[in-house]
Amino acid sequence: MSSIRVRQIWQQGGAVVNGWLAIPSPFAAELMGRAGFDSLVIDMQHGVQDYASLVPILQALDACPVTAMVRVPWNEPGIIGKCLDAGAKGIICPMVNSAAEAEALVQSCRYPPRGSRSFGPIRAGMGRPTYWKEANDEVIVMPMIETAQAVANIEAICAVPGIDAFYVGPADLALSLGCPPKGDADDPKVLAAFDTVLAAAKRAGIQVGLHNATPEGALRQIARGFTFATIANDASFLSARAIEVTGAMRKGLGQAAASGAARPGY
Amino acid sequence: MSSIRVRQIWQQGGAVVNGWLAIPSPFAAELMGRAGFDSLVIDMQHGVQDYASLVPILQALDACPVTAMVRVPWNEPGIIGKCLDAGAKGIICPMVNSAAEAEALVQSCRYPPRGSRSFGPIRAGMGRPTYWKEANDEVIVMPMIETAQAVANIEAICAVPGIDAFYVGPADLALSLGCPPKGDADDPKVLAAFDTVLAAAKRAGIQVGLHNATPEGALRQIARGFTFATIANDASFLSARAIEVTGAMRKGLGQAAASGAARPGY
Amino acid sequence: MSSIRVRQIWQQGGAVVNGWLAIPSPFAAELMGRAGFDSLVIDMQHGVQDYASLVPILQALDACPVTAMVRVPWNEPGIIGKCLDAGAKGIICPMVNSAAEAEALVQSCRYPPRGSRSFGPIRAGMGRPTYWKEANDEVIVMPMIETAQAVANIEAICAVPGIDAFYVGPADLALSLGCPPKGDADDPKVLAAFDTVLAAAKRAGIQVGLHNATPEGALRQIARGFTFATIANDASFLSARAIEVTGAMRKGLGQAAASGAARPGY
Amino acid sequence: MSSIRVRQIWQQGGAVVNGWLAIPSPFAAELMGRAGFDSLVIDMQHGVQDYASLVPILQALDACPVTAMVRVPWNEPGIIGKCLDAGAKGIICPMVNSAAEAEALVQSCRYPPRGSRSFGPIRAGMGRPTYWKEANDEVIVMPMIETAQAVANIEAICAVPGIDAFYVGPADLALSLGCPPKGDADDPKVLAAFDTVLAAAKRAGIQVGLHNATPEGALRQIARGFTFATIANDASFLSARAIEVTGAMRKGLGQAAASGAARPGY
Amino acid sequence: MSSIRVRQIWQQGGAVVNGWLAIPSPFAAELMGRAGFDSLVIDMQHGVQDYASLVPILQALDACPVTAMVRVPWNEPGIIGKCLDAGAKGIICPMVNSAAEAEALVQSCRYPPRGSRSFGPIRAGMGRPTYWKEANDEVIVMPMIETAQAVANIEAICAVPGIDAFYVGPADLALSLGCPPKGDADDPKVLAAFDTVLAAAKRAGIQVGLHNATPEGALRQIARGFTFATIANDASFLSARAIEVTGAMRKGLGQAAASGAARPGY
Amino acid sequence: MSSIRVRQIWQQGGAVVNGWLAIPSPFAAELMGRAGFDSLVIDMQHGVQDYASLVPILQALDACPVTAMVRVPWNEPGIIGKCLDAGAKGIICPMVNSAAEAEALVQSCRYPPRGSRSFGPIRAGMGRPTYWKEANDEVIVMPMIETAQAVANIEAICAVPGIDAFYVGPADLALSLGCPPKGDADDPKVLAAFDTVLAAAKRAGIQVGLHNATPEGALRQIARGFTFATIANDASFLSARAIEVTGAMRKGLGQAAASGAARPGY
Repeated sequence: MSSIRVRQIWQQGGAVVNGWLAIPSPFAAELMGRAGFDSLVIDMQHGVQDYASLVPILQALDACPVTAMVRVPWNEPGIIGKCLDAGAKGIICPMVNSAAEAEALVQSCRYPPRGSRSFGPIRAGMGRPTYWKEANDEVIVMPMIETAQAVANIEAICAVPGIDAFYVGPADLALSLGCPPKGDADDPKVLAAFDTVLAAAKRAGIQVGLHNATPEGALRQIARGFTFATIANDASFLSARAIEVTGAMRKGLGQAAASGAARPGY
Repeated sequence: MSSIRVRQIWQQGGAVVNGWLAIPSPFAAELMGRAGFDSLVIDMQHGVQDYASLVPILQALDACPVTAMVRVPWNEPGIIGKCLDAGAKGIICPMVNSAAEAEALVQSCRYPPRGSRSFGPIRAGMGRPTYWKEANDEVIVMPMIETAQAVANIEAICAVPGIDAFYVGPADLALSLGCPPKGDADDPKVLAAFDTVLAAAKRAGIQVGLHNATPEGALRQIARGFTFATIANDASFLSARAIEVTGAMRKGLGQAAASGAARPGY
Repeated sequence: MSSIRVRQIWQQGGAVVNGWLAIPSPFAAELMGRAGFDSLVIDMQHGVQDYASLVPILQALDACPVTAMVRVPWNEPGIIGKCLDAGAKGIICPMVNSAAEAEALVQSCRYPPRGSRSFGPIRAGMGRPTYWKEANDEVIVMPMIETAQAVANIEAICAVPGIDAFYVGPADLALSLGCPPKGDADDPKVLAAFDTVLAAAKRAGIQVGLHNATPEGALRQIARGFTFATIANDASFLSARAIEVTGAMRKGLGQAAASGAARPGY
Repeated sequence: MSSIRVRQIWQQGGAVVNGWLAIPSPFAAELMGRAGFDSLVIDMQHGVQDYASLVPILQALDACPVTAMVRVPWNEPGIIGKCLDAGAKGIICPMVNSAAEAEALVQSCRYPPRGSRSFGPIRAGMGRPTYWKEANDEVIVMPMIETAQAVANIEAICAVPGIDAFYVGPADLALSLGCPPKGDADDPKVLAAFDTVLAAAKRAGIQVGLHNATPEGALRQIARGFTFATIANDASFLSARAIEVTGAMRKGLGQAAASGAARPGY
Repeated sequence: MSSIRVRQIWQQGGAVVNGWLAIPSPFAAELMGRAGFDSLVIDMQHGVQDYASLVPILQALDACPVTAMVRVPWNEPGIIGKCLDAGAKGIICPMVNSAAEAEALVQSCRYPPRGSRSFGPIRAGMGRPTYWKEANDEVIVMPMIETAQAVANIEAICAVPGIDAFYVGPADLALSLGCPPKGDADDPKVLAAFDTVLAAAKRAGIQVGLHNATPEGALRQIARGFTFATIANDASFLSARAIEVTGAMRKGLGQAAASGAARPGY
Repeated sequence: MSSIRVRQIWQQGGAVVNGWLAIPSPFAAELMGRAGFDSLVIDMQHGVQDYASLVPILQALDACPVTAMVRVPWNEPGIIGKCLDAGAKGIICPMVNSAAEAEALVQSCRYPPRGSRSFGPIRAGMGRPTYWKEANDEVIVMPMIETAQAVANIEAICAVPGIDAFYVGPADLALSLGCPPKGDADDPKVLAAFDTVLAAAKRAGIQVGLHNATPEGALRQIARGFTFATIANDASFLSARAIEVTGAMRKGLGQAAASGAARPGY
């Protein structure tokens, strides 16, 4: 069995409970790292993260029982290589809409002969001289399926060797289908697209993950076939709890609750 | 009426709902700054904060409807001056156990003739040439009462001019009294000490604040006479919500919940 | 009328007085933010800025009466999305030389159906659940016209829907035309190119901005038709004033002025 | 002659033109470092500086023709030692009001046998194995004289061996004497205090420096006997120039100038 | 047996091999953390470290098999508390010259009733609700003995309850005794002082550590009775190896070796 | 003769001894900068570096006798321009596999008319108004030759005007040729590829550099014709020395050496 927790769960037929890091603080990250998630994704696309915050977060997560992965800002070989070298165990890549884009992603994530990842695993290979032999089997490659175009191309994308899982972005997929972006998708067009992706992926032996707003939504989608479920992110956890607390105080004090509160849970 | 929200609430006889910032991230701070608190305290003593994180947090909070204050790491004039110059509207100072220590705190917070704060309000006075005339009436000075010794000296401390409010630290007070440190105090010895402080402060026209673990605990203490109530901190909000979410997922998936989760809510 | 100050000025037929941030310090930024500019651009291309400095600067500027925008380092969707999510109200993009490059820029800046910006406005949408509906009308898109090729293609570029304004880079345009790079352009070839851009833009209802070295130069160019004028940058302001001061001191002390002083005003 | 530029100027009977760094940016610092100053002081007391910004600024100034010194936040041996180890060539220390406080400062700045500075010049001694023998003759020790009490004790302070120069803080001195804080002092009580300090220092062979608002003010005070003159700081340089520029633009555009602009020049 | 590696070694009668971190980089720290040391000390006194670099280094070391401790910049309760809360397993404190100073150090490091450490172990107690009960037995308290005065007072210092070990600073001790500071001490006066400290400590059941320049020097001193030995620091390791490498290259290329190279090994 | 040390050595027919910076610390960088290297390369591809660490390192190296260059993460005009503007004297660019990719690199590095680098040398041109005229002759452009494809295309790549030197990456080249990645290459296929590159470059008047693991390996390759030799990096220097030291201590103490130590020397 793989030493990577996410792979272990998939090998056992389970579903991964994933957390999402938008707050650029290693301290916030280790709080999340000890909260019971199987894996955590540092979100360099929409999160308030860049390489300068990524590295200390990966270092802090090395002491936590989670698989640490990265959503990169774009399908660009420079940043993908940097994240893997820094120790990310997997890459979620936004806006992979065609087989060519999926192939480019795999190229960036795999060493030769499968791909063209450049060698220099400065943190990933620390203390592991054989990392280069094992990396292609370890690193989890997850292209995002989040447009109508990607759904239309799903069979071709499934045919690209080297993909471990898809990650479905429901907000972008909804917008692309002319629906409003929702945290827990319920529009029939969006759900139909989910099913198209799930069916194609199942035939190809590829796992499928999804971003969700709530545990209830996530559990519903796991029942639909998803095997990797993110619930909101650290920023919305913090904000939601704080708003609950001030609401309870205002109610107890007989005051009106504040309006216009933060809502960062993208 | 004062332009400072915390002073306004006190002038109207109300109780301040205060948040507490331990995560060294301006982004986390602005989420808290939009969650409905009257005021926020950046905790440089036990929080993961120092001057390098303080300044961008104060800058971010300038755009939020809260009074931003600082708990300094110690009763030391250098750091107190730096926090005030950086724009803190108030100072909470730990371990003020005697009138002499309270006088030293006031000296550090007030310009002459009352005190000996050094002049140079680099952010506090930005665009306000008259800041130096108004600062002594604006800056909120809150010594912490958190030892048996401080409670014993409370009358003498109350007699030091220039104190706006006390801030009671229940965990340290409990330890000092031989009780375990609890988030929401319920030990009779600790509650008796609360009452001693509240009574003396009331006679002296001084407000009293308290750190609490939950809204329920905070509301109980406001009923006892406290007029400034902190509920836990941002780190425990994040951690608690994350643990709830993973618990709901584990329950939904029929798995055992993770144990040994984070518990940073000091 | 738009809530965005830059759009308001344009709607009223005025010219925007813009400042330029090359110093990677939120404190320097808020000094600029209180100095009377209508808007400020954080320069991630030639300024000493990256995403790590961008975010705290945007946070500090939230408390200042300016429209905060970003010049991105390149026409790349990853960084453009990150800047918009972080709260930039507009994007200035270098080296847009063709209609295809202009279209790519608009794609990166607009949500579907007009573009393909990915959804996740973590700071931009804080407290605004309807941001996604309003963003396409708010975000200011300003491709840079700064090569002979771009001037030659200006009609085709004007025909790309979704461009609010051009931003003319006089130094690169001069180099591209075989002229030396000057802060306040006066070479006839450069001025002729300005006029070509201004005329085409006017026909298309597109505003045109320009980088300048001095207020005098900027006012001359506003008279020519530009409606958005940057004057130098914060680094050259600091440097120029410091050199004036040491010059006055050397003169007063009867000493020779220092030579070889800094000249960072690019 | 000393290899330290400030000492050279004093040995030649001249006056030092000093700059002041409040902006926590090494880039801003090197602009100041190339603007013609003899020396620069990183202001850790009222500037937006701490040790985290100090070190890269000292590194950047190593390539500039200036003597780099530090104003520490307080007369505390820990931070004084850290600044000297980091490579500061001199220490300006606030609020030295008695001979005992001056002696404490000298103790912190000098190695045995004169003082008790702890050994470990990690940057100061880089490539110089003999630094420990030379440091006591090199490091410039400048207690601040900025209260009525300090002026009253000036003879006793002068008698403490190991002081190179005083640094007079006119704003704090004015407040201490019941006068408003001004950038260029002109109150007779303040000027009389200046003369008291200058006279005592001259008898003791000690140089005297002063903070000023303008070159004109600085030159007037040099004529009075000061031999080290600071003019404002980097933050006020930036702010003043920016306000001039927007003022010129508003005038040229026929608009009212913005009011309430920044005024950070403390 | 204690869960703290340093305590385990002492309980077994062994000597601790300690490394020293002066480079403010969590990446450099984790390289040291995997290099075979029993413990590492982050040097906030003479190292290029402050709280901002301390926290991510402690986070990175959580994943390494070492006991992480801190040398604080001074015997000041604010910073000592912050380091312990951040997760340091021990405190080395400079310049403890008397029993009163040793008592102050113990007060800062121990919770009541032994001491007056303030409660709030934000990282130290993460996931450990019982930390406050166990901390007094875990935290290693090591006052530095590094002056003639401290050696003269060694019996009185030994009598202060709560000291686990002394840490002897040979450079400061040498300077205090009128000897040059050496990495591996060999002056008879210094060695005699070592023996005085070792003898008193042995009678009191206190361990004694020493800073050394080389493994050879460290082994000699362990033979003398020291049970905790630091060898140089990360900065001198890096510098020494780099100078060896360039020396080998210059020799191979038939060139003169560079002189004046770095020597940061304080 | 050029003012750039690397160019001087080449003009004199010598070989450059180059160091490699993977640790994101300006302090570590200046230790390397004083260790006897001719040049240093900040590695933004595999090193733990980004723009946020690059700038203070370049500032620190301005005071050291080395030519400071950058390996960029990828052949992308945005980051190449930022590095040059920040003051890098040369660019090493990974994975240049064709003449078209080499041409793109040259375009990014040279001002018109040769290239299309955008003008704004904010640090590179500090105090040098004529920088734009001189930059094309100064900036060192070094595409990496590190795949079988690049070796096959070497003649076409050599024909692209504006290349100063190649930099051969032996690990990636080995992987691309089906060999294991080694620090000091010895596989005949790899050595044959070296010779192909060296021969073509010699005919074209282009220098060739190589990454090596040891001085012995580097000297062997200089004898083969390379004129620029890197030896490992700062991270492996630190790690190797630390492991030597703990090994010597374990041996002296009669203990087994630690296994599984760090090995970051990529």
